[in-house]
Amino acid sequence: MLSIWPITGIGEVARGADLGELIAAAVAGAGGRDAGPATAGTRQLPGREHPIAVAQDAAADSPPGGWMLRDGDVVVIASKVVSKAEGRVVAAVDREQAITDETVRVVATRAHGAGLTRIVENRLGLVMAAAGVDASNTPAGTVLLLPVDPDASARGIRARLRELTGARVGVIIADTSGRAWRQGVTDMAIGAAGVTVLDDLRGGVDREGRVLSATVVAVADELAGASELVRGKACGVPVAVIRGAASWTTHHDGGGARAIVRPAADDMFRLGSDEAYRRGYEAGRAAAERDPVAGQ
Amino acid sequence: MLSIWPITGIGEVARGADLGELIAAAVAGAGGRDAGPATAGTRQLPGREHPIAVAQDAAADSPPGGWMLRDGDVVVIASKVVSKAEGRVVAAVDREQAITDETVRVVATRAHGAGLTRIVENRLGLVMAAAGVDASNTPAGTVLLLPVDPDASARGIRARLRELTGARVGVIIADTSGRAWRQGVTDMAIGAAGVTVLDDLRGGVDREGRVLSATVVAVADELAGASELVRGKACGVPVAVIRGAASWTTHHDGGGARAIVRPAADDMFRLGSDEAYRRGYEAGRAAAERDPVAGQ
Repeated sequence: MLSIWPITGIGEVARGADLGELIAAAVAGAGGRDAGPATAGTRQLPGREHPIAVAQDAAADSPPGGWMLRDGDVVVIASKVVSKAEGRVVAAVDREQAITDETVRVVATRAHGAGLTRIVENRLGLVMAAAGVDASNTPAGTVLLLPVDPDASARGIRARLRELTGARVGVIIADTSGRAWRQGVTDMAIGAAGVTVLDDLRGGVDREGRVLSATVVAVADELAGASELVRGKACGVPVAVIRGAASWTTHHDGGGARAIVRPAADDMFRLGSDEAYRRGYEAGRAAAERDPVAGQ
Repeated sequence: MLSIWPITGIGEVARGADLGELIAAAVAGAGGRDAGPATAGTRQLPGREHPIAVAQDAAADSPPGGWMLRDGDVVVIASKVVSKAEGRVVAAVDREQAITDETVRVVATRAHGAGLTRIVENRLGLVMAAAGVDASNTPAGTVLLLPVDPDASARGIRARLRELTGARVGVIIADTSGRAWRQGVTDMAIGAAGVTVLDDLRGGVDREGRVLSATVVAVADELAGASELVRGKACGVPVAVIRGAASWTTHHDGGGARAIVRPAADDMFRLGSDEAYRRGYEAGRAAAERDPVAGQ
């Protein structure tokens, strides 16, 4: 069974904040809710000498093993708070210029009301609308850029959580993105440490004994999306814990979420259809003009 | 808190099988594990006169509210077993021909080893590799096609579960798909009933009080992906229950997962880059040949 719950009480994250510590403290606060077998029906709150009586339901509704972090838990963190802790709030008179600055390669653009939707590849190799630049949840006149190296951020937070809680957890940094052919956004993993981001089942067998040929599951993206369901977009809960996914956590940090980015050579959608068509059109016209006979 | 668990014991699904009944029976089997407050430490198994003693852990590890289906649960079903129940296993000497038959529009193709990877739009409007035709988990010489109308399948199973269990659940039919710019597959919702598939947060406000402008969350896809984590590709567990997502379940069946398919007019990736470039090239060359002067 998979259990997923939000970590509340983290509050506003300032530049320079120790996210690992904030998370550990918020988890410890929630841990006050734990009612183990010895204290069923009561609850030991921090700062109180004696446990208080609680309804039986409270214990029944806690995740298996209680609220405290355990080995094999996966902690999913919204990239937004990682960016804030890392001081990635930058002054930007013009959000469009900030997007341009973050853009490595333009994939597709389209007029959208008064503005322009820009699907671009950013420094992290991620193909995203607006390069992942975020102008919500930041003071006016500023925008929030993605972490410089979300895999490194994940490694740092993982090490800090180990230090503070003793638990060897997996850490995922999640961000929100649209998809090519589907409406609506979902969360994906842009950083990871201690998590098997791609579960390669190739070479395994199905129920009929046939070898699975092309099944690599993007587990980290599914974990990120699952966590979004309890973190939510509007409720401002930046962290969730997933219990029951320990088989995808690893002893070492591993290569991180960068591995999920499809290499250019395998990318059949490097350019939007209109953009590719226009490039082809220009090339075709130029070829015909250079060599009208061969063009026939 | 979100709890997600697999429904085991469904077994092989034959043509004409009543999936709602199979799921209800498998859930009732698991329900034997429920240990409510009155029977803590014991377990009433079906067909036994007296409850048996169980370890305390069994109760602690059950989802909040127990294993039986409740109003607001979401039941996620692999499209594979829906297809099997609906007799969508068809003889196919040639899997490639089966893919061609299911294709409405070719989006992109690429040589892949000895074969050809074909990304196409299928009858359901879904852009998928191999049109969603599945040659695994079926007898040799056959392939499995997607359900004819997965939203209708979801509605039927939902009604049947209501009839058999009394619970008003949401139902999602999930299938596995690749993504344009990300490696690995994830599960998405191809059918749904009683579920808010797209959660439209536009018009809501963020923590700073600013109006959220462009946030529609593909909740049904995130639920499908989350369920994949407990169903798994290789272990052959076709059904999972999600508890804690009741805010996205609805009284009525609703429009279903078809609404997640991006309309053609909004699709910036109607064609693969190479395909669009080639079409543009031909058009540019033809234009220059028709009218060499204007082409300058």
